[in-house]
Amino acid sequence: MPAPVDPTSPQRDYPQREDDVIERIAQIVGQRNIPKGERHIGDDAAVLAPFVGQAVISTDVAVLGVHLDPELFPLEDLGFKAVAAAVSDLAAMGARVRGAVVAVTAPPGTDLEELHRGMADASIVTNCPIVGGDLAQGRDVSVAVTVVGECPGRGAVYRSGAKVGDEILVTGPLGRSAAGLRRRRDGAPLSDELVVAHRRPWPRLSEGMAARGAGAHAMMDLSDGLGLDLHRLCDASNVGFALFDVPVAAGATYEEAIAGGEDYELLITTDDAARLRLVFLDRGLREPITIGTVVADRSSRTLRGEFFERRGWQHQL
Amino acid sequence: MPAPVDPTSPQRDYPQREDDVIERIAQIVGQRNIPKGERHIGDDAAVLAPFVGQAVISTDVAVLGVHLDPELFPLEDLGFKAVAAAVSDLAAMGARVRGAVVAVTAPPGTDLEELHRGMADASIVTNCPIVGGDLAQGRDVSVAVTVVGECPGRGAVYRSGAKVGDEILVTGPLGRSAAGLRRRRDGAPLSDELVVAHRRPWPRLSEGMAARGAGAHAMMDLSDGLGLDLHRLCDASNVGFALFDVPVAAGATYEEAIAGGEDYELLITTDDAARLRLVFLDRGLREPITIGTVVADRSSRTLRGEFFERRGWQHQL
Repeated sequence: MPAPVDPTSPQRDYPQREDDVIERIAQIVGQRNIPKGERHIGDDAAVLAPFVGQAVISTDVAVLGVHLDPELFPLEDLGFKAVAAAVSDLAAMGARVRGAVVAVTAPPGTDLEELHRGMADASIVTNCPIVGGDLAQGRDVSVAVTVVGECPGRGAVYRSGAKVGDEILVTGPLGRSAAGLRRRRDGAPLSDELVVAHRRPWPRLSEGMAARGAGAHAMMDLSDGLGLDLHRLCDASNVGFALFDVPVAAGATYEEAIAGGEDYELLITTDDAARLRLVFLDRGLREPITIGTVVADRSSRTLRGEFFERRGWQHQL
Repeated sequence: MPAPVDPTSPQRDYPQREDDVIERIAQIVGQRNIPKGERHIGDDAAVLAPFVGQAVISTDVAVLGVHLDPELFPLEDLGFKAVAAAVSDLAAMGARVRGAVVAVTAPPGTDLEELHRGMADASIVTNCPIVGGDLAQGRDVSVAVTVVGECPGRGAVYRSGAKVGDEILVTGPLGRSAAGLRRRRDGAPLSDELVVAHRRPWPRLSEGMAARGAGAHAMMDLSDGLGLDLHRLCDASNVGFALFDVPVAAGATYEEAIAGGEDYELLITTDDAARLRLVFLDRGLREPITIGTVVADRSSRTLRGEFFERRGWQHQL
């Protein structure tokens, strides 16, 4: 959005500034090969070739100093994590990603190129083209990423579809991201394996599409930790759960596995776990891990028979 | 995106906070009647029924104190203007709007309900449902709005399509928004007609779709002022222009009309202005105003034979 302008103010003496910056950034995040019939950065809006099936959209905002400690991590990690978090929301629906737009605020002097290099990296590894964006001045460095995708076939998988008797599965062991943050705070280098898991989260797009194809009943991503997100899924589905296991990643603590968040593994329920495993196997994906069962009593939420309390990350607003 | 969390920190003692706030806001911006087959706020992503034709997407960020002076205007105006600016980008492509997602940052104590009421108002007048969002803490109040829409039929209208000999038209007289800002600074009430034009810009969605239907060659919205945006359109189309008129709105100055920005009238070029007028008339839209002609020499940019300099709003980044 343009800022209101007094046409007599001196700002009109520098009319090239914004267009110049946007052109430099477009070089960093833009695609080399834009598909025929598409138009990305440079017009009022981006144009994408027709979607197949439902359109799926999600937005996610990350703020430097809130979502990333600038003393511990380079600015490009903010860009990477913001894109990855948004893409993960589409993975959680079983969607195929079609593109992202990024809206950035930053104070003067911010290294916008470094920030956008992080976004470009995430765009490449998730195969999610950055097709447009906006820039404005602000006191915070913030990145709002919106991703769009498509769900052909049977359509998106919701949180609300879990059925009594469903198996509950996760796509990988938990707690790596929180463990990486702890290790970084304790002085581990940026290249440490768990620190990388925190800096460069990997959205489970292939797993999400495989789970949709295999007829999963309910799905979400574990962005805020199993201890919060499993409750949210069961709230939406009006069911309870009985867990028998929490798979803790090597190097992570139990507490990190259930309340750490930012793992972006998928939480899946299905009445045909054998089929789910087969589809994952067939697509070369890591075998999902069964952690429990959906139960009818909405208030019954247990791990090995003990009440499993609701805990995990919530922003203070 | 979740902020990194130390699972032992006290924040895990307030696990309901974010979900509670989001639920209250969803009451304000959410739709009463969600179309069959769609799912809006509440899952990892929003799901919309299949789009017809190309998918069009644009993002726009507005920051309190940069895009809106909180001494002069209520917070809800930031929400309204952010949504309207994003919707206007879709109007400029000739797209039909399908939905918006909103990512908000704000310091503690911000009246998030007032901010979202402004977005809800814009959502209603533009018939653009708000289907999802995200919230995070920051020092600035910022609103990043992303809109998605569809372009059936002959597809989106770009900036780059202007042809030599095309008539250049605008959908209305210019300068109302800048005049309203000036009047507000001079003490006019919020209800003053021009102040309202500044606070409540009206995206020209119907006009954009009509122009696409009438086969317009090029189009964009005048968010940054004719003195900048006409140059951008001609840069993209590799042409020049010869203007014979700048229609100045009642109450606005000539300078406000060419460099004020935020009018959100559409700038259109076509080789069949008679047809454009007929389609506008047929749809009950105000008659577009011819202001000049597209010329072959890219460096020839004139108003009544004099060089028409490039000027208008650009952010300092």
